[in-house]
Amino acid sequence: MATGYHHGDFTLPGEAGYEQLTLELAKKWGADVIRDSDGTKLSDEIVEAGYRIYSTICIIREHNAFATAHPDTQQQTFLCSDPVLAEGETLIIEPLKGYFEEQFRLNDTPEALEYWQVWDRTADAPVPDDSWTYADGKITVANAVPWHRYTASFLCWRIWEEINMYNHTTNSWTSEHLMQLDPRHPLAWAYLQKWLEDWCEANPQTDVIRLTSLFYNFVWIFGSDMRRRTRFVDWASYDFTVSPAALKAFEKEYGYALTAEDFINKGLLQATHRPPTARKRDYMDFIQRFVAEKARTLVEIIHRHGKQAYVFYDDSWVGMEPSGKYFASVGFDGLIKCVFSGFECRLCADAKVPVHELRFHPYLFPVGLGGLPTFSEGGHPERDAMDYWLHVRRALLRQSVDRIGLGGYLHLTNGFPAFVEAIEQMAVDFRRIKALHAEGAPATLPVTVAVLHTWGSLRPWTLSGHFHETNENALIHINEALSGLPVNVKFISFEDVAAGALEGVNVVVNAGRAGDAWSGGEAWNDPALVSTLTRFVHEGGAFIGVGEPSARRGGDTCFALAHVLGVDLDDGRYACHAKWEAGESLGESLPVEAMALPENPGIRLTDPNTVVISGDSAAPRATLHAFGKGCGAYLTGFAYSPEAASALMALILRVTGAQTGDVPMSDNPLVEAAWFEKSGALIALNNSGESVRANLSLKGKTHTLSLGPYALMALENVAAD
Amino acid sequence: MATGYHHGDFTLPGEAGYEQLTLELAKKWGADVIRDSDGTKLSDEIVEAGYRIYSTICIIREHNAFATAHPDTQQQTFLCSDPVLAEGETLIIEPLKGYFEEQFRLNDTPEALEYWQVWDRTADAPVPDDSWTYADGKITVANAVPWHRYTASFLCWRIWEEINMYNHTTNSWTSEHLMQLDPRHPLAWAYLQKWLEDWCEANPQTDVIRLTSLFYNFVWIFGSDMRRRTRFVDWASYDFTVSPAALKAFEKEYGYALTAEDFINKGLLQATHRPPTARKRDYMDFIQRFVAEKARTLVEIIHRHGKQAYVFYDDSWVGMEPSGKYFASVGFDGLIKCVFSGFECRLCADAKVPVHELRFHPYLFPVGLGGLPTFSEGGHPERDAMDYWLHVRRALLRQSVDRIGLGGYLHLTNGFPAFVEAIEQMAVDFRRIKALHAEGAPATLPVTVAVLHTWGSLRPWTLSGHFHETNENALIHINEALSGLPVNVKFISFEDVAAGALEGVNVVVNAGRAGDAWSGGEAWNDPALVSTLTRFVHEGGAFIGVGEPSARRGGDTCFALAHVLGVDLDDGRYACHAKWEAGESLGESLPVEAMALPENPGIRLTDPNTVVISGDSAAPRATLHAFGKGCGAYLTGFAYSPEAASALMALILRVTGAQTGDVPMSDNPLVEAAWFEKSGALIALNNSGESVRANLSLKGKTHTLSLGPYALMALENVAAD
Repeated sequence: MATGYHHGDFTLPGEAGYEQLTLELAKKWGADVIRDSDGTKLSDEIVEAGYRIYSTICIIREHNAFATAHPDTQQQTFLCSDPVLAEGETLIIEPLKGYFEEQFRLNDTPEALEYWQVWDRTADAPVPDDSWTYADGKITVANAVPWHRYTASFLCWRIWEEINMYNHTTNSWTSEHLMQLDPRHPLAWAYLQKWLEDWCEANPQTDVIRLTSLFYNFVWIFGSDMRRRTRFVDWASYDFTVSPAALKAFEKEYGYALTAEDFINKGLLQATHRPPTARKRDYMDFIQRFVAEKARTLVEIIHRHGKQAYVFYDDSWVGMEPSGKYFASVGFDGLIKCVFSGFECRLCADAKVPVHELRFHPYLFPVGLGGLPTFSEGGHPERDAMDYWLHVRRALLRQSVDRIGLGGYLHLTNGFPAFVEAIEQMAVDFRRIKALHAEGAPATLPVTVAVLHTWGSLRPWTLSGHFHETNENALIHINEALSGLPVNVKFISFEDVAAGALEGVNVVVNAGRAGDAWSGGEAWNDPALVSTLTRFVHEGGAFIGVGEPSARRGGDTCFALAHVLGVDLDDGRYACHAKWEAGESLGESLPVEAMALPENPGIRLTDPNTVVISGDSAAPRATLHAFGKGCGAYLTGFAYSPEAASALMALILRVTGAQTGDVPMSDNPLVEAAWFEKSGALIALNNSGESVRANLSLKGKTHTLSLGPYALMALENVAAD
Repeated sequence: MATGYHHGDFTLPGEAGYEQLTLELAKKWGADVIRDSDGTKLSDEIVEAGYRIYSTICIIREHNAFATAHPDTQQQTFLCSDPVLAEGETLIIEPLKGYFEEQFRLNDTPEALEYWQVWDRTADAPVPDDSWTYADGKITVANAVPWHRYTASFLCWRIWEEINMYNHTTNSWTSEHLMQLDPRHPLAWAYLQKWLEDWCEANPQTDVIRLTSLFYNFVWIFGSDMRRRTRFVDWASYDFTVSPAALKAFEKEYGYALTAEDFINKGLLQATHRPPTARKRDYMDFIQRFVAEKARTLVEIIHRHGKQAYVFYDDSWVGMEPSGKYFASVGFDGLIKCVFSGFECRLCADAKVPVHELRFHPYLFPVGLGGLPTFSEGGHPERDAMDYWLHVRRALLRQSVDRIGLGGYLHLTNGFPAFVEAIEQMAVDFRRIKALHAEGAPATLPVTVAVLHTWGSLRPWTLSGHFHETNENALIHINEALSGLPVNVKFISFEDVAAGALEGVNVVVNAGRAGDAWSGGEAWNDPALVSTLTRFVHEGGAFIGVGEPSARRGGDTCFALAHVLGVDLDDGRYACHAKWEAGESLGESLPVEAMALPENPGIRLTDPNTVVISGDSAAPRATLHAFGKGCGAYLTGFAYSPEAASALMALILRVTGAQTGDVPMSDNPLVEAAWFEKSGALIALNNSGESVRANLSLKGKTHTLSLGPYALMALENVAAD
């Protein structure tokens, strides 16, 4: 097993004009597939070199001629005007004022106007339809209450496909703005099916169509003022799926009508980080079924032409949650996920689809997503790649995927030989890990951790997009840590708890901010939820609360599980009530400082038996609280690092009392390990860029290792003693 | 006017056994009155020395023989047990578990039990009376829902007068515990009137009875565990006024019954810092009338004996707000307020009563209220006194009182000659300031500042007790700053705004935390309030919001006046919404850094025209926002210092555009000044312990001064040019 792992399961982005480089790197990195990318083509020389070929298609854009001829087939959204103050009884609202005029155009057709609304935001009430009129792009409100603030909610066309818009405005592109079609429009849908048929006919060399991705982009709303260019961006919002046709179809099916306010929500929209209304849930399910049905038709076309259909999980992915109820029904042959992090790897690996492929970062592009140089002067793409790889590799060690790959302009690797070497090593490590999994799973602790939040299994592992898009939320850091720990992980919703989801669970994690979707908000006002979790812990389970867990309004405590945690958040309610002084810590010495626990001055001890393990009575940062046969643990926050992941592992062992058994434990927080019993292999990962030593204990034996920077080390024939 | 000011308006605590010291200090400090104190007596020699005599009476305590003979005449309170978890369908609650057994005794008489309640706190519902029973000090709950938490609300006797309890437990006293009588009990009331008659008869030498104070102490609840000795303390709560008799009288008068839950409020009680319920407001008014009526009877007795009645505003003051509707009706001859701060001086000065007297700190006692040494080894009572004096003096410069004085054990001044000198100087300064006011008021800016909060004019200046008891609230710091600024100040409630209280107001200040009584909480959901203030600013007023001003739940913004301020608090609602980047600051350079503005990471700009004057877009700490003809100003907080007060003055001038006119302005923030036109005197205060220079500008002239530490400097004959 010491040699090999130099070929296969690797997707290389080829580039016409760089045929030699393409074939050279294909060999060096062991590619079996060559793909095109957004902006690159494959030449005949590449296509005929004996590799499988992926071709990238973004199904809803690059149809400008059709869209221009049929502008009403474009996609739409609801928007809300900025509020206008009534200084008298009449006022004028210019709906799109403050929005990017190249992204939006008012939809003032009769069928759209039917859905427009004007709201008195001061009184929190809609203005009767007979008190406002629309003409020439302006709304006139009559009978206004002076000194109240008014907004208009309206439909508009989205006339610039958002990924194209982003690339244009970021890179000062001057090419034609790409438009996007709504597959709900019968004309567009007929056109798209035909177009795909034609494409398949015209591209016999393609083995796999890589859909980037389906129909509706995540929500990305630009403003006209460069001091707030992006007004709103949510990777998991559904606003861009809306249209009068969708609303009418919804009403017909559900028996009730959605209104603009169901989307606009006082102008705040309905971000994924906030608990959804029941109506939003209905709408999401409605869209998911529509997306799955239409996607299934496309996949059938692709299959009929003897090709496979892989889907990329980003950009126009909305409605296609891979763990949702309808994903499997589409019949995709593969799921491709671009990854910076371990949690994204687990998310991909969990999907019910034959092939799971990771697209690594950095993309072969002059600058990265954050705008910093990568393959250009000042860039260090090999460092970026290794940094992401350290996150991904530890997740792969727990659960493998089938393939890896890259994307972008291959010629940009010229001048970055360290990157080329790094990718080669990553590919070798990946294939080794994949082979071990193929022989048998690594040993796992008899511990199941259930992450509890509003979205449950619909949104496992992720919050809303990549790590750096949601890194202000402690939960994404927790998920990242969990992605590489030797425990079973599942994601459950509050409804799941009622349905018995705690069966077999040892640890429940709830991590969020008061009122958000991750903490749960008003869900915690359900006495059944609270008592089920109370019983769960009292009978021996553990509850780890992070940030403002189980926070709700209206109860006698802010945290519904304050009695389990032994701490609560003072949201003002404890005015004049003294805090408990901390007692003895009884020798608890968990390395929780590594979690970078923030100060939350509102946290207070509510029980004399709560043990402070970080901070003090005035500002506890981490606590333990024995409750019945179980335990509540509280952390003010959690920031991912290898050390923090190691500390979380120690905390899980402490609160569950689990024995490590045949799971190797490292005494160095920078080193993690896994034991593959079937292979007799003990694998150690150095999760850092420095040389380290570690003692790994496994079944009573200690293995002392020295690992170079980033090293994966394998001890073979470690024993079944 | 340069000499004099050495006699009068000074109350000295005399002490039997120290006759020579008493008379010596009386002369040195210019006393015209000698008083006794809690723990000291006056000897004949002192009483007959030609001074007016105050005698201290605490009317409801020191009647242990009567209280022992009639234990049901003692005072009571509602308490709430700690929650008990139901592990099955039956559970036992020991109501007083966790409370200090020397303070409370269960009142399980039939008339009290009628008011007891058991609550399912998990379901937030009362348990039906037929599902629980009480016997032998324990409550047994049947038909409990397993894993729910239950509490009992119950009445108990307060068997130890709280001020005595505090002194006992703090100083390890061993004397008999003093009990306290409830004047609502007919037996007690008859006894107290008789006792006062007898006392007056027996003490013909007394000129003034100094009541310390009336009937009901502020709420001070001790726990049994020394790690949380004080469970709850609120200087302005009314819980200690309750009894079955009070509840029955209330029900008879108001036509509805209060329940235990009206006081217990989920176990959180109803602290002054939280917005009250309508029922609590009714109850407070009910108690205020009762207290005023009973106090009036006592004052009539005192007057009938040719004595005067002064009342001390602390300890058992509850129901006697000096600015309340009923205070004047009592007929007190004087109000005595102990002061650490300027706001307390203004509070006293505002009361409608013939004589206003301040009792200075430190009290002549070995240790201070905070437990640190004063008149004992390690103490520096002269420093403490001067520190408080700097606060009080600047308030006196704006509005004088009639008298000052001290309290405690006079002999403790032995060995502290610097204190004796400091008091002499303070007395001289006080008399000089009082004489100036007598000639004519100092010049004031044409600016009226209205502090807007839930309690309005019922609770002007104070929050709940002394500065150090409420110093976590920005508002007390603001009030302290305002107490010495040359502006008119009033305190208004949200109801007052509806009744036209903004007439004549130039600046509205709202300073508090989301949901508290100072910010206002749900009051801000009233569109009329919001639009009245919107109009007020739009038409030229200024709104200064501090902390989480106008915060409410349920609106489209967290701050109801976010549109006026140009900032809002992100309580999670703005997930995925971008912040505005700050624009140019347009040369605004107010010295707001002196306000010690804390970071509030949730604050964000909501308007491109908001000007950040401290902090940046990511974390604005102070902002200005032009709104119509007026201005909104936002501060994350405010901590009092002379420099902060000076900065607040500058901010008020900026947002009002007021001209300073004949109000002198200092270029040194440590120096404040006032011009007394009638006296032709320009008075400058050095608000620091260092030597300073300052230029005072007045009507176009500049006066350059050098002031020694703590100095009050008077420029005479400054002129009416």
